[in-house]
This record gives sequence, structure tokens and C-alpha cells, in this order.
Amino acid sequence: MTGPAATASARLVAWAGRLRLADVPAPVRRSTALHILDTIGCGLAASASGVATAARDLVRDRAAAGDCSLIGGHRRVAAAPAAFANAMLCHGLDYDDTHRGASAHISAVVVPAAVAAAEAHARSGADLLRAVVAATEATARIGLSAPGRFQARGFHPTSVCGVFGAALAAAGLEALPPGRTVHALGVAGSMAAGILECLDDGSEAKPVNAAVAARNGIEAVELARYGATGPRRVLEGRFGVVAAFAGGSGEALAAAVDTLGTVWETARIAPKPYPVCHLMHAAVDAAAAALDASGAAPDRVAEIVVGVPPAAVPIVLEPLAEKRVARTAYHVKFSLPVALAIRLLRGRLDHAAIEDALGDPAVHALARRVRYEVAEFPTARDAFPGRAEVVLAGGRRFPAEVPVQRGAPAHPMTDRQVLEKFRGNASGALPAARSRELEERILAIEREPDVRDVFALLSPGS
Amino acid sequence: MTGPAATASARLVAWAGRLRLADVPAPVRRSTALHILDTIGCGLAASASGVATAARDLVRDRAAAGDCSLIGGHRRVAAAPAAFANAMLCHGLDYDDTHRGASAHISAVVVPAAVAAAEAHARSGADLLRAVVAATEATARIGLSAPGRFQARGFHPTSVCGVFGAALAAAGLEALPPGRTVHALGVAGSMAAGILECLDDGSEAKPVNAAVAARNGIEAVELARYGATGPRRVLEGRFGVVAAFAGGSGEALAAAVDTLGTVWETARIAPKPYPVCHLMHAAVDAAAAALDASGAAPDRVAEIVVGVPPAAVPIVLEPLAEKRVARTAYHVKFSLPVALAIRLLRGRLDHAAIEDALGDPAVHALARRVRYEVAEFPTARDAFPGRAEVVLAGGRRFPAEVPVQRGAPAHPMTDRQVLEKFRGNASGALPAARSRELEERILAIEREPDVRDVFALLSPGS
Repeated sequence: MTGPAATASARLVAWAGRLRLADVPAPVRRSTALHILDTIGCGLAASASGVATAARDLVRDRAAAGDCSLIGGHRRVAAAPAAFANAMLCHGLDYDDTHRGASAHISAVVVPAAVAAAEAHARSGADLLRAVVAATEATARIGLSAPGRFQARGFHPTSVCGVFGAALAAAGLEALPPGRTVHALGVAGSMAAGILECLDDGSEAKPVNAAVAARNGIEAVELARYGATGPRRVLEGRFGVVAAFAGGSGEALAAAVDTLGTVWETARIAPKPYPVCHLMHAAVDAAAAALDASGAAPDRVAEIVVGVPPAAVPIVLEPLAEKRVARTAYHVKFSLPVALAIRLLRGRLDHAAIEDALGDPAVHALARRVRYEVAEFPTARDAFPGRAEVVLAGGRRFPAEVPVQRGAPAHPMTDRQVLEKFRGNASGALPAARSRELEERILAIEREPDVRDVFALLSPGS
Repeated sequence: MTGPAATASARLVAWAGRLRLADVPAPVRRSTALHILDTIGCGLAASASGVATAARDLVRDRAAAGDCSLIGGHRRVAAAPAAFANAMLCHGLDYDDTHRGASAHISAVVVPAAVAAAEAHARSGADLLRAVVAATEATARIGLSAPGRFQARGFHPTSVCGVFGAALAAAGLEALPPGRTVHALGVAGSMAAGILECLDDGSEAKPVNAAVAARNGIEAVELARYGATGPRRVLEGRFGVVAAFAGGSGEALAAAVDTLGTVWETARIAPKPYPVCHLMHAAVDAAAAALDASGAAPDRVAEIVVGVPPAAVPIVLEPLAEKRVARTAYHVKFSLPVALAIRLLRGRLDHAAIEDALGDPAVHALARRVRYEVAEFPTARDAFPGRAEVVLAGGRRFPAEVPVQRGAPAHPMTDRQVLEKFRGNASGALPAARSRELEERILAIEREPDVRDVFALLSPGS
């Protein structure tokens, strides 16, 4: 089952089954704990802001009872609905981390699914960490099979690929036998979903994609446990996920799977300093640097010309007339012109600043002066690069380039910055002492004998 | 919202909201009642055969309690899990009806979703009938936007399109306001899923596709009720369902939507006389007719050459070596060579005959003598045509053609035949008196004040 003739899903299952935490390099384990913390923090911030709370409120009112925590909710529910609710929150502000090569928000799907499955089965923190690493490595590789091609068709790799990571994590934490786990991944293929149409009108369906993926992964495992079967070549088959959703073949996937255990894709995940699409972070920072260099006030700016890689254009710049308007706070997260204008005029780009700036004519006036050029960057394979040129009234030009966005592995946020981000995110949702305890225990999750004791802290307090 | 500039989802919602049962022609209402009966019968037969029961058993053990019936289950559960379990059963044997133009099993998704939503809200049979008609008309039109093109990419229109029908039915039965219903359809876009890879190895994930669609439609409505928003151009947008899943544009969809209320796609749905893929019914019947005409016994057959439309080839004939083997009963449903051999050797093609023939060397020997040609048929747009030529040892040739498969609108099964199919399907699952009562009440569903009294009969008895 694990030889060269094995299917991709069988190879992922076999590798995940063999993985021991001791085989995972210490920095990767540390990164994983930080990803869990960062992801949970993003969910807490969404909950406190009242963003992407629909699934949580639905689940709170109607789901079957169980052992799993809800972010910002007092009830404990079954694993599938908990993953559903929490993943929607964790991806709600688009503040959660991204894997560049896969162009996927991996943790927002994998972490809620793994946490819920670990709670449901009363597993240890070490088990949780191992499951998150295995699921992250698997999800990244599915995305790497067709970089950029899921989005080019309108699909969201976060959810289309993430459902398999969620299933792999849940199967490991439930100790589903390998043969059944291969079926679970096959069944997960029936549940892979997620389109990007909401980027065009500012509706908030993208967090639903993450919710569906996290929940479906758990449910695929439950169905396989109850005897459902799925196709062995669910990933690389002629009607499999890579072909259907991305027009890709199985060869790139096989090559990515070959590196399991030698290349740690988990270490390539980048946290976000701003709650907006990763494709525009560098251009925003470049514009801020250029304006700083000019010494001018924003009202002296005649034009800003941003430069981004081609793949960014249909996501954050076109249709340009729509992007310059940005109907909702969610729309701003995928509008480089408006996000950039907020950053320059308000000096920051957090959720409160975005919400507050929505109706500001000055923001929209500046957004209308942003135009773009497509640019090639040698760093584009591993990072989200960008540049900007500020043109002042009178014609002076101030260019700046950010070849690697802040937070990328080659330009990392420090642990302290990630912790500060978490504290800020948690501050509106949890009392300080509870937030601090949650932080400390997640950072030392390997030592927790029962994760339920940790994630019970997600409730606002009782 | 309903003018020519309205989005497709807004137009579907507006039309469904205006639809009155009195506006639906009597024959369409009668067809709809028969579709409900036929679909439920298929689910009962699967339950009795132990096929596609994983979701039902999972839901029975774990779902939140509610008012909705499970086929073959004693518990009453919430609407979403009931739809999930029942849709998997109704599509489990691939015995349920098909809409040719959309190439979709519409009733297997729409009926379980509508029944569950109607039970959850204690609606009347007339309300249920109206919701099923509206949902069927909408689902068919989404499929008609890109005929054959979902499958060409590996996607299953039954589920990809069906989730919108399920959502529309559930929203109508819940009386969700139109604006919220448009959001529900937008959210359903995040949940549209379903690939066809299982056709290649006989695993049984295809019924999961139907289950996911029925459940997700209900859940999209619940999320919209709780405030979730979705894209207005979820169907025809550049990253919408028609483009992403089928590479289509919104123009064909708009044209199909234009005919709402004047063309009744519900009347174009064809029930199946055999529990195998509709693409091979005509060729199977043609082969049986040709063998009859020859007067020969099957062991005198040297070769059978079937002719099918091009779109059938990748579903029921290729990869030919795999199709000739057919690993499981499910695989047989998508293997024309094996299904045909069973029909000729056993004289019938029901589920028991398929299961019984799996290990029969004579069946596989005859299947190896089946080859195919691609053929064009003037009837292929509205039916599933096929032909076959039986070549006897010695060289005599007996051709036969079935331009319109039995059960199609132009070659219909009689009401009596549909009722006999239901009785056979129900016989293993329900006592005769209960089956007869269920049949009578579904056929007169318009007169039922509370559908819960009808579908309580789905339980094997208490």
C-alpha cells in the first residue's frame, strides 16, 4: 500500500500513521503550536467582533451535545458541529495564516477540525500536535499539485484541499484503521467544495468554505467508520480532485508526496500581520514606506501605482471599479485600493480601522487614485511580494518594493509579535487571565494530558 | 430584483416565491407525486438491502433529535441530518430518476431535503408538493446551463446543482424571506460538491454526493437565517458555480431561467426500470431484444457490439478493462458490459441479480465479448438512446436499437409500472399494509394537512 504504485491518499495515510512527534524537528513543532495559537486568536477576534458568527450561533442552538468547545460559546457540542462553527470564526476575518505554495489557509481548517476531534476523543496535546502536523503536511501537498490553478477556475484551495487534512487529522485522533482512513479520504472527495465568487460583492461566504471543509473532514471519517467507501484515486484519478478542481494531473502531487518527512511544509506557513488578503500585504507596506520616504501627507498624493504578481490581479484588483468601491468590510479584505488607502490615511489596517473607514469619502477618493501594473518578482514562488510607487502632486515619484511580505518564513514575525497578535485578538473575547492561561497552555500543548482542559478556556467564562 | 438585470439566483427565488400549486398543470403535479413515491421507494429498497446505510446509521446514533423521519430508522432527528441520511439511501442503488437535459438525479436530492424541511416545519402536503416542483424546476435549469460539461470535468451535477434545489425547497418550507433566500443560495455555493472518481473502482461515494447536497441545502438556509451572507452571482459569476464546475457562462442559464413557468422540466424526469446508470438502459434493452430475435441461447453469442452516444463512453465503458471486471455491485451499475451480460444470462437486472452475479464466471466471460462503438442518435438530447448488435458463433448478426429508453417521457413507464416498482422496493422494508398506506397517502399528498403523519410510515414499524 505504500510502494510507488500506491495511490496518493494511501501514501498520505501511511505516512501520517507512521509519524511520531519525535520525528518532527523542534522548530516545526514550535511553529505548529504558534499556528494553533494564532488560529484560535483569529477565531476569538472574529467572535468578539461579531463576524462570521452564524455557524457558531446555529450550532449553539441546534447541534447535538458533545465534548467539544465552541469559541465564544458556553455549550459543548459534537465534533463535527464544533469544527464547523470554529473554522468559520477562525477564517472569518481573513487574519489567519497562509501557505504560499498551496495558496491555502491551512490552519483555519486543520486546527478547528483537529481540536474538535481531539476533544471528542479526550486525546493529549502531543496527539493533537502530531495530528495538526500530519494534516498540514498533507493539505499543503494537495495544494502544491496545481499551484494557482484552483483559484484560476474559481475554487478555493483552502477548503478543496483542506477537507482532506481535516479528515486525516480526525482519523488519526480517532485511531481509525489505515484502510478505513483511505476510504475516509475517498469519501471526503464527495465533500470537497468552495468557490470564490463572494470576492466580487463583499458577501461573507469565504469563511463558510473553511467551516464546511473542517466539518466535512470529520464527517467523512464518521461515515467511513460506519462503513462508507470512497475511491482510492480520489486525488489523482481522472475524475479526482486535482483533475476536476484544477485541471491538474497526479504527477505534481506524487512529487510533492515524495518529500513527506524531508521537507516540512508546516514551516512555510506565514502568519498575517493584517486581517486582509495576503496577496496585498507587500504592496500595502510598500506604499506606506514610499509615502514615509516622500515625507508628504496623503492628501498630496496624485497617484499610487502598485505592482503585483499576475495571480493577484483577479483576486484583489479586478474588477477594478468594484474593488475601488468595496461594499463591506469583507470586501475591503480583497480590495487592494481601499485597504491601501485605509493604511495610508489611518496609519493602521486592523479590523476596527477597516470597519470605521467604510463610509469615509477620503478613503474612497484615495482608492480611486490607485492603479496597478502586473509585475514579476523572483520571490513570488515562496512569498507574496509587491511594490508601490507614490506620485505626488507636482510629479515627484517615490518607489518602494517589498519582495517578501512581513510574516513570511524569509521575513518572519517574531514569536513575540505572534504572541502580541494573539493577545490583541483575544482581548475582546476573554478576560486577561484566561487569555494568558490559554496562551501558555497552547504554547506548551505537548505537555497537556487532555486537550479538553485547554480548550474549555475558549468559552468566555462561566 | 426580478427584472432582466436580476441575478439568476434572485430570479429563481422570486419565481419560487410566486409559484402557487394552482399554477402547476395537473399532470406535472401528478408526476411530482409519483417522483416522490419512486424516490422514497428507492430509499426503502436500499435500506432493506443494506446499501448506502452509513449515513442513516451515523445519524441515528449521533444526530440531534427533531421531527424528521429516517428511512428504516426509528428515531426522529433534525432536518439536516434526516436529509443527509435519506438522500444517501435514495441514491444508494442508482435506481432513482434522472433529468436528461441536466444529466442529474434531481429527486434523490430534492425530495429528501424537502420532506425533511416540511416535517421540521409541520407543513402540509400541498406545501411539500409546491416546494418539490419549485426545487426541481430550479435544479434542472442549473444543469441545463452546461449540459454534459459538469461530468466532462469529473463533477456530479446531481449534487453540484442539486444543493441549490435543496436550499430553495427548504427556504420555501421555512418561509425564509426572499432576500435571505438569495443569501442562502449564495451560501449553498460554498457547499456545492461532488466528483465522479468512484465510478472507476466501484466504491460507493456517489450516494454520498446526494447526501451532502440535500443536507447542505438545508444548512445553507439555516446559516442564512442566522445571518450568513453569500454572493448574488453565485451561479453565473466569474467565480460562480457554472464557470467553476463546468466552464460555462451565464447566458445558457439565463435562457433556461427565462422558461420558468412555461416549460415544466419536472415533466421531463424519467424513472428507471433498472437500478443501473441511465446511460446504459437502452443498450441493455437493445441487446436483450436482439438476442430474443436471434432465438439463440447466450452461450452461442460470439460478440456484442453496443452503440452509445459519446458522453456515455467515459461513464459506463471506459476504462474498458476495468469496466469488464466490475469489482462490486456498485461498479456493475456503471459497467455496460457486465450489466448487459447479467441481463442476458439472468433475464433480469435488479439489485439481487447483480449481487448474485458478481462472482459468476459466465457473466464475466460474456462481458469480455462486449465491445462498443460511439454512435450519434437524433434522440440523444431528450433521452438516453442506445443500440446493440448480437453476433452469433457462425457470424449471423442481429441488430436492435432503442432510440428512447423505457421510462423516458416519450416512452413512459405507466403509472401502474411505477407503482409496481414502488411496491417491490418497499416490500423488503415495510409490512404490506404500511407500504400500501404510504403509497396511497403520497399519491394524494396534496390533501395531507401535516406531512409528518405520512412520513412517520417510513419507519419499519413500532
